[in-house]
Amino acid sequence: MSLVVVGSVAYDGVETPHGKADRILGGACTYVALAASYFTHTRIVGIVGDDFAEEDIHFLTSRGIDLEGLEHVPGKTFFWSGVYSPDMNDRTTLTTDLNVFANFDPKLPDTYRDEPYLLLGNIQPALQRGVLKQMRAPKLVGGDTMNYWIADFRDELLATIKDWDFLLINDSEARMLSGESNLKKAAAKILDMGPHTLVIKRGEYGAILFRQDQHFMVPAYLLEGVFDPTGAGDCFAGGFIGYLASQGVSPTRHDIDQLHLRRAVIYGSVMGSFCCEQFGPDRFRTLTRSEIDARYQEFKTSTDF
Amino acid sequence: MSLVVVGSVAYDGVETPHGKADRILGGACTYVALAASYFTHTRIVGIVGDDFAEEDIHFLTSRGIDLEGLEHVPGKTFFWSGVYSPDMNDRTTLTTDLNVFANFDPKLPDTYRDEPYLLLGNIQPALQRGVLKQMRAPKLVGGDTMNYWIADFRDELLATIKDWDFLLINDSEARMLSGESNLKKAAAKILDMGPHTLVIKRGEYGAILFRQDQHFMVPAYLLEGVFDPTGAGDCFAGGFIGYLASQGVSPTRHDIDQLHLRRAVIYGSVMGSFCCEQFGPDRFRTLTRSEIDARYQEFKTSTDF
Repeated sequence: MSLVVVGSVAYDGVETPHGKADRILGGACTYVALAASYFTHTRIVGIVGDDFAEEDIHFLTSRGIDLEGLEHVPGKTFFWSGVYSPDMNDRTTLTTDLNVFANFDPKLPDTYRDEPYLLLGNIQPALQRGVLKQMRAPKLVGGDTMNYWIADFRDELLATIKDWDFLLINDSEARMLSGESNLKKAAAKILDMGPHTLVIKRGEYGAILFRQDQHFMVPAYLLEGVFDPTGAGDCFAGGFIGYLASQGVSPTRHDIDQLHLRRAVIYGSVMGSFCCEQFGPDRFRTLTRSEIDARYQEFKTSTDF
Repeated sequence: MSLVVVGSVAYDGVETPHGKADRILGGACTYVALAASYFTHTRIVGIVGDDFAEEDIHFLTSRGIDLEGLEHVPGKTFFWSGVYSPDMNDRTTLTTDLNVFANFDPKLPDTYRDEPYLLLGNIQPALQRGVLKQMRAPKLVGGDTMNYWIADFRDELLATIKDWDFLLINDSEARMLSGESNLKKAAAKILDMGPHTLVIKRGEYGAILFRQDQHFMVPAYLLEGVFDPTGAGDCFAGGFIGYLASQGVSPTRHDIDQLHLRRAVIYGSVMGSFCCEQFGPDRFRTLTRSEIDARYQEFKTSTDF
C-alpha cells in the first residue's frame, strides 16, 4: 500500500534574503516524496541526467523512498534558479533549463501499477493523464497544476482533473482556473470540474479545504523566520496525501472521512512549514516524526477556541 | 457596567466595485459602538457638526447606544471619501475634511467615568491618554492606532499604549511599530511595550492574538462577496471588547481568561465579516444577535479538526 509520486526532480539555484545556494536538490517530485515519506512508503517517477549526484540518491533512499521509477538518461538534470523578494512573497526566475526533463515521458515500473495512492506533480496535463492510465486500480488520485497549463492547455487540463479526487492549487491559480475572484465561488466552480476535494494553498496565510457540502480553513504555522520557501507547496501536498495514505483512506467518490481530510490539511501545513526552515530540502535531513507530531499539536493549541 | 468608546464620528463617501455612496454614516467610533452594542451597553464620546442628521442619531440610539458624550458644535461633521481597488485590498483617499473633528478634545460625561471598559479608537495618542486619565477605575482598556501616529508621534504613542491592556492593529502597523518584518518577532517586541495582549488584524486573512505565553490564530470568515470593507477593522474591535465586557472580564494584568480572549477574537471576526456585507454600517440596521451566534458556530465548524 504505497504512494506513487510523479513530477520533476531537479537542481535549484536559490537566493533568499538569508543566503544563497548555487545548486541544491529540488523539484516538485523530490519535495512531495520527502514530505510524504514520513507518513507512508513512497515511490517516485521522474527523470534525471548523468550529473545526478550519488549523495542525492542516498538522501532519498535514506528516507525509504523507492527510486525504481527514477529514469537516468544521458544529459543534464533539470535546472531552475531564482531570487526571492525581500519579504519572500515573490520570486523572479533567473534560469529554467529543462534539459532531460524536456523529454520526460513517465513510465511506471510494473510494480508501481497496483498501488492505491497517486500524487501527480505539476507537469503537462496530458502526461499526468497518461500516468493515471497506467495505474490498474488507484483509490485516491490528485495533484497540482500551474498558471501556464491553466492558460494555454485548458482543455487538456480539464480532461485531466475531471478524473482526480483532489486538486491542490494556490489562490491565484484557483481564480484563474475558475474565472472567479471570490474564493468561495471559485471553489464551487472548480468542484464542478470533477475533483470532489479542492485544497487552496495560501502560503503564509494558510489553506482552505473545499468540498461540496463544507469547507475547512486553517491559518499557516507562524514561523519565527522563513529561510527558503522553495518547495513548501509541494511539501504541503506530500504531507496531505502521505497522511491520507497512512490512514488507509480509500474513498468512494463522496464518502471520504471529513476528519481525515482536515487532519491531512494540518499535516500538509506542518510539512510546508518545516520546509521553509532551511535551504532547499535540508530540513528533511534531520526532521523526525516526533517533531512533526509536536507541531501538529501546536496547530491544535493555537487554533482551538 | 458599560463600555465607553472614543473616536471619530463621520460621514463617508465610499466607492467600491459594487457601487457608490456619496454620504453615509461612518467613523471608527460609530463602527466600534454599533458592533459592541450587540454585546454590551455602549456609550460613545465623539464630536459632530450641526449637519449631523437626526436619522443617524435615531439609528445609533435604536441600537441602545448612549450619546450623552457625543458633542454637537457649529460647523460640519468630519468627512472622508475614498475609492477601493477592484480586489478591495487597497483604497485611495480622495477627501479628508476634518472639520469639527480638528478640535476634538474628548471630555467624558461624569456618568461615564466609573465605567470599567474603554475602547480608544484611532485618534491622536495624547488625546487617547487624556481620556484614560478621566476614567476613575477602568478594568480593561485598549485601542487602535495607525501608521501616521507610529511614524510621527512615536514617543507619545509609546507613552500612551504602555498603560493599555490590549492593542488592536493590522499587520503593516505591527511591522512598523516594532521594526520587525516577522510577525512573531514583531509581536514579542510590542508586548514588551506595555499591553499584555496584542491582536494583529490581517483583513481577509484573519487575525492573530498574541500574549507572552501563547498565540491564537483564526482565518477570516469566508464571504461570498465583500460589498464594502469600510469599518470592518473597527467592527472587529467592537465585537472583541463588547464580548469581553459581556462576560464581565476584569483581569488583573496577567490572569485574563485565555478562552474568553480567543472567543473575543472570533466575535471580532464575526462582526468584521458582517460589516463587509453592505455599504457603510447598513448591515447593522437588520443584523440580529442570533445571526451573530450562528456565524460564530460556522467559525467553529469550519476550523475544527
